[in-house]
Amino acid sequence: MNKSRIDKVVANMKEANLDYLLISEPSSIDYLIDYVNHPGERLYVLMIARNGQHKLFFNKLFFVENDLGIDIIWHSDTDDAIQTIVDNLNNPKMIGVDKHWTANFLLSLMDKMPNVRFVNGSKCIDYVRMIKDETEQALMIEASRINDKAMDEVINQVSLGLSELEAADKLGKIYTQLGGDGNSFDAIIAYGANGANPHHENDNSCLLPGDSVIIDMGCKYKGYCSDMTRTVFYQEVSDEARNVYELVKAANEAAEAMIRPGVKLCDIDKTARDLITEAGYGKEFNHRLGHFIGKDVHEYGDVSINFDLEVEEGMIFSIEPGIYLPGKFGVRIEDLVMVTKDGCKVLNSYPKDLKVI
Amino acid sequence: MNKSRIDKVVANMKEANLDYLLISEPSSIDYLIDYVNHPGERLYVLMIARNGQHKLFFNKLFFVENDLGIDIIWHSDTDDAIQTIVDNLNNPKMIGVDKHWTANFLLSLMDKMPNVRFVNGSKCIDYVRMIKDETEQALMIEASRINDKAMDEVINQVSLGLSELEAADKLGKIYTQLGGDGNSFDAIIAYGANGANPHHENDNSCLLPGDSVIIDMGCKYKGYCSDMTRTVFYQEVSDEARNVYELVKAANEAAEAMIRPGVKLCDIDKTARDLITEAGYGKEFNHRLGHFIGKDVHEYGDVSINFDLEVEEGMIFSIEPGIYLPGKFGVRIEDLVMVTKDGCKVLNSYPKDLKVI
Repeated sequence: MNKSRIDKVVANMKEANLDYLLISEPSSIDYLIDYVNHPGERLYVLMIARNGQHKLFFNKLFFVENDLGIDIIWHSDTDDAIQTIVDNLNNPKMIGVDKHWTANFLLSLMDKMPNVRFVNGSKCIDYVRMIKDETEQALMIEASRINDKAMDEVINQVSLGLSELEAADKLGKIYTQLGGDGNSFDAIIAYGANGANPHHENDNSCLLPGDSVIIDMGCKYKGYCSDMTRTVFYQEVSDEARNVYELVKAANEAAEAMIRPGVKLCDIDKTARDLITEAGYGKEFNHRLGHFIGKDVHEYGDVSINFDLEVEEGMIFSIEPGIYLPGKFGVRIEDLVMVTKDGCKVLNSYPKDLKVI
Repeated sequence: MNKSRIDKVVANMKEANLDYLLISEPSSIDYLIDYVNHPGERLYVLMIARNGQHKLFFNKLFFVENDLGIDIIWHSDTDDAIQTIVDNLNNPKMIGVDKHWTANFLLSLMDKMPNVRFVNGSKCIDYVRMIKDETEQALMIEASRINDKAMDEVINQVSLGLSELEAADKLGKIYTQLGGDGNSFDAIIAYGANGANPHHENDNSCLLPGDSVIIDMGCKYKGYCSDMTRTVFYQEVSDEARNVYELVKAANEAAEAMIRPGVKLCDIDKTARDLITEAGYGKEFNHRLGHFIGKDVHEYGDVSINFDLEVEEGMIFSIEPGIYLPGKFGVRIEDLVMVTKDGCKVLNSYPKDLKVI
C-alpha cells in the first residue's frame, strides 16, 4: 500500500462527502497498492474507506503471492460477488464509484442498497494521479527517451518502403531492444490521405511521392507510458503541406512556451487553436489539444476548452495540435510535457523541423 | 442494419418492459448494424427503441464512410454527449443499459432522468447473440479449423526449445499465414508449475524435462473467434501427471458426449466436475467448465452451476476442464462445441491423446 497516495484520496473523499470509494480501474489499484492485475470481466474492486478499513475484493481464480498489506475479500465464480461488498460496508450514506466501473456491478449494488446515494467519485483518485511524484517523473522521462530513439528507427524503416502495417509490426521489437516494455498503445502509422483520419487503422498502404507520414507511437517503461507524434514527408512536399506543417509546428511550440504553474489548461488549448483558426484551418483541427498520461496512455484530464483547471508542478500531458484535410493529408506534432516549478520540460527531443525522407 | 436480429432484441425488450435499450459494447453494435468501431473512452451508444426510432450516438472525430441505415446523432468532445441521448428519448419509464456501460455515462444519465428506472438490460441482446446463425457458424468453424492447424505449428515451435514468450510471439504470424486475422486473445503458453495458474502471464521460462505445456490460444477470422487448449509434456511424463491428464480428458469427453438441445448448461458442468471430484481433484478444478464465444472470445453465458439455461441448436461454447497443482503442473483440455439438432459438433479436431514432445 502506498500510504501517502491513499491519504490524498481519503482527503478528497472527505471533501466530496463520500463514505467509501470503489475503485475498479486496474491502473488506479496498482497506483495505490502496488499490485497489477487485469481480471477482465470478473469483479476486482479496491474499496477505500473513510474509516481506514480499506479492502480488496477479488476472485479466487487469481493468485496473490505477496502480502499486499490490505485485507482481501475473496469470492468465487459461483458466489454473489457484489454481496461481498455489501457485507463489508458499514452504514454508508454516499458511495463513490470510479468512472469505468461497469453497469452490471453498479446496478446490482444500487439494487441492494436503495437508500444509498451513488456518485461518480473518480475525481478523488484521478486528481491525485494527475500530479506525478519524482519516481513517476523519472520513469516517464525514460519512457520518452526510449520513444525518441525508437522514432528514429521507425522513420528509417518507413523510408525503406514498408507498408503501414509492416512498419508498425517492427515497433514492438524496436522498443524491446531499446529497453522498453513494448507498445503503450497500437501505434498509428498513416500514409497520405489516411493521415487525414486521426483514428486511422493501419493498413497495407505503401508510400507515394508527396505523401505525409503520421507516426503516433509510445512505449511502456516500468509501468509508465510515452506517446509522441511526428509527421514527415516522402520524397517531396507540396506548398500547401509545407504551410500546414509549419502552422502545426508553430501551434505546438506556442502552446509549450506558455506552460507553467497557474496557467489554465483551456487557455493552452486556446493559444494553439486560435493560431490555427486565424490561419483558416480551425475546422480541420477537430480534437482536443492534449490529454494526461501516466500508467495509462489516456488518463483523466484534457488540454481542452472543457478544463479550466490550473496547471500544477508535476503534471504530465500531451500537446498535439493537428490539421486534417480529408482526401489529401494530415499533420500532427505531439510531445509530452512535464510542468516544472517555473515552466515545463518537454520530454521529447526528436526534432520537429520539416523532414523529407 | 440487421433487421431480423434487431427484431429479436425488440421482442426481448417488450418482454422485459423496456422502452429503450442503450447498447455500448462495440461487438453488439457490430452484430446489429454491421459496423465496427472502438472509440475507447468516448461515448458510443446504439439506442434500440421499442417504437422503432433506433439511433446511434457517436463522436464527430470518427468518420463513417458508408450509410449505416440508421440515424446518427453526432456530438463533439466539447458537447455534453449524454444530453444528446436525453434529447432523443420520448417519455421513457424504464431504460435498459448493457452490462459494460461505464459508470460515468450511466450515473450522468440517471442524474438527468431521476424518474426513470434503469436496469441491466444486457440479456435482451446477449440471449440473441448466444444462438449463432448459419453465417456465423460457418465463420466459427473456419476459425477453429485455422486454430487446429496453428496448434500443430506452435507445438513444433515449442519443441525447439523456445521460451514461453518467444513461442507466443510466433503465433500472430502463424495465424496470418494460415488465413486468420491474428490472435483473438493473448495466448497462454505455460511451462511446468506456471501452468498451475490458469491466468499465468507468459514469461522467459524455458522447458525442463517432465514439464507440462499448456497452450491456450485462438484466432479471429472475419470477426469471429476460436479458442482451444491442449496440454502436452516435454520429454517425459510422471505417473501423477499422466493420471491427471487422462482424468481431464475423460471429463472433457464426458461433457461433450452429453451435449444436445434440452440439456442444461449446469448439468454439463456437473458431469465433468463430478468425475474430477470423485477422483479427488475437485478443489484443483477451480473454474467454470466453459464460456460462450462468438465475436468476443468471452460472450455472455457460462457452462457452470450458475446457468440452468437449456442448450439450444446454434449455441457455441467452450468445454475446458482443468486441474491445477500449485508448484507442480497444470492440465487443461479445451474444445469449442456447436450445438446441433440432435447433439453437438466439436469444432476442434486436434488430437487429445496424451502427447510427449
